[in-house]
Amino acid sequence: MARVAVDLLGGDAGPGVVADAIAAILADPAAAGFDPDNELSLCLIGPDETVAALLRERSIDLDEHPSLRVLHAGDCVPMTASSHDTLALLRERDDLSSVVGVEAVRDGRVDAFVSIGHTGATVGASVLGLGRITGMGRPGLAVELPSARGPVVLVDCGAAPHATAEDLVRFAAAGSAYARIIGIPEPRIGLLSIGGERGKGDHLRKQADVRLEEEFGDAYAGAVEGHDLVGEPSADVVVVDGFTGNIALKSMEGALRWSVGVMAKAYGSFEPAREVLRTSHFLSGGSLLGVAGNIVVGHGASSADEVVACIRRAALLNAGSLTDRVREALGGFAPLNSRGELAT
Amino acid sequence: MARVAVDLLGGDAGPGVVADAIAAILADPAAAGFDPDNELSLCLIGPDETVAALLRERSIDLDEHPSLRVLHAGDCVPMTASSHDTLALLRERDDLSSVVGVEAVRDGRVDAFVSIGHTGATVGASVLGLGRITGMGRPGLAVELPSARGPVVLVDCGAAPHATAEDLVRFAAAGSAYARIIGIPEPRIGLLSIGGERGKGDHLRKQADVRLEEEFGDAYAGAVEGHDLVGEPSADVVVVDGFTGNIALKSMEGALRWSVGVMAKAYGSFEPAREVLRTSHFLSGGSLLGVAGNIVVGHGASSADEVVACIRRAALLNAGSLTDRVREALGGFAPLNSRGELAT
Repeated sequence: MARVAVDLLGGDAGPGVVADAIAAILADPAAAGFDPDNELSLCLIGPDETVAALLRERSIDLDEHPSLRVLHAGDCVPMTASSHDTLALLRERDDLSSVVGVEAVRDGRVDAFVSIGHTGATVGASVLGLGRITGMGRPGLAVELPSARGPVVLVDCGAAPHATAEDLVRFAAAGSAYARIIGIPEPRIGLLSIGGERGKGDHLRKQADVRLEEEFGDAYAGAVEGHDLVGEPSADVVVVDGFTGNIALKSMEGALRWSVGVMAKAYGSFEPAREVLRTSHFLSGGSLLGVAGNIVVGHGASSADEVVACIRRAALLNAGSLTDRVREALGGFAPLNSRGELAT
Repeated sequence: MARVAVDLLGGDAGPGVVADAIAAILADPAAAGFDPDNELSLCLIGPDETVAALLRERSIDLDEHPSLRVLHAGDCVPMTASSHDTLALLRERDDLSSVVGVEAVRDGRVDAFVSIGHTGATVGASVLGLGRITGMGRPGLAVELPSARGPVVLVDCGAAPHATAEDLVRFAAAGSAYARIIGIPEPRIGLLSIGGERGKGDHLRKQADVRLEEEFGDAYAGAVEGHDLVGEPSADVVVVDGFTGNIALKSMEGALRWSVGVMAKAYGSFEPAREVLRTSHFLSGGSLLGVAGNIVVGHGASSADEVVACIRRAALLNAGSLTDRVREALGGFAPLNSRGELAT
């Protein structure tokens, strides 16, 4: 059983995309990739009238779907809000969809929350509402990349632009817990950097290289370069500050979108290239590691398929007891404050 | 007339790749993309015996090619050398190919130098041998990306991992000079960051945002995200520190290589996808901005085609008088020291 709350608000294309994803799952859960033996219940978050209209447009009757619920939220944090404004809004208003979704997780009314809205709002509401797991500094967003060797977990992809070396160590521990959930029993750790050799990179990388070696020993595989993330990386969990990680992920996204155009031209037809893009779910979003609850942060530009992928991921986090596994993985580490410094 | 020195040493695949590029140009300069009205003379740099053997294998007789010369260099900086070891080697040995190539530029024996060897060695030898243009702090590596809107110049792609906000301002000025050479008369400036809004990103980005606005006014278009670099960026010249820029470029490279495999599978044939990769010359290398001479830094994994593209770029820098244009562009800026700080 997985109970997943889904934010209808905040995506680049409006709530219709999320409603389409819900409709697809209700119509055929197995075709949408959900295990028929593991019952899924969905909770839609948005203004009551909006939700009612979206369901009506898709001929979805709440009475016929006892597993579908609605939680009212009046508004969302605008996609253009600065981090300062976002934090102020989150503290002022309790009817924002990110706050309502996180509170549903906190109160045990759902097992996970999915949003394709403002990333900073989802991360901020999660930290404020759920709290950080002891040992974690800044939470990190983990995205699964489809490397030639199998999935590679990249942490952080944008939640912590100012991550410290200590934060990177905790991303490695929490990312390893996540990797085990997705079927990598003994994950190796890598550090996203420039040049494959030890000692290259900036100050943060030099510090992190030393600390990762200290904490993970032989499980630390050293530096991983940008082109290896979806190539043949020497690691299963690659850690990076959220600024660089976000740029790496979005650069890959841009290159893939660019290649769709040039490949379609080279082959003389569009459809197969578009299908590749449609099924490249590493662009659809990631899992927030280090808060006390299951949170999936989707890409603002997600398609309905990508929203479905986010909801599948939410069910997976719940089935794998992510929060417990991260808590165990961080058990041996000294506490950090919210700026990624050793707490005193 | 363009006289280009080419480093035979240091590429990932050995000197044969560079020799193949030379053979292709000698066989048919026009087919290799060189203007028949603009005579090209090439100077090969490497151990005399190695060069002789490589030419013999390709049936190239120096006597039949008066425009082809050889400059002896005994060795190169190994690809795995750390930045510390590289600097020590460059100061100790005057027979390294990067030192020999840069000295040929400095002494006016050639107009440009191309190397696919150790990037740090080429950059270091250039700074030591040619000096920095007044107003430049750290030199920046400019790579042309094929966006949907036309070429976009990304500076820096790896020469300056520790760039400061002042360095980024100089990258913007020098990058604009480069953009004019490749046919963008009024380049707009962008800052590679996360989120399109002002004020997002880390400390360096916040500082750079303020300084770019001060210096470039309306020509500064604000933040550019990773997915827009080859998408529809709002700027023609996008500046970034070399750490992040290298990771962005290599992430795009990795995604493109990954897409070749999945696209070939989706379409059921390999050749068109491979051809896309073969002709995506943004992967082949960049131009070093801010040193007093024309230097092209190629990707260590370059193919012969990509080496040819690097040599074409070298001829272009010479035809466009890059060094003079960068000197003019930096004329109004206060001098910086080699750490990107205002010189006192």
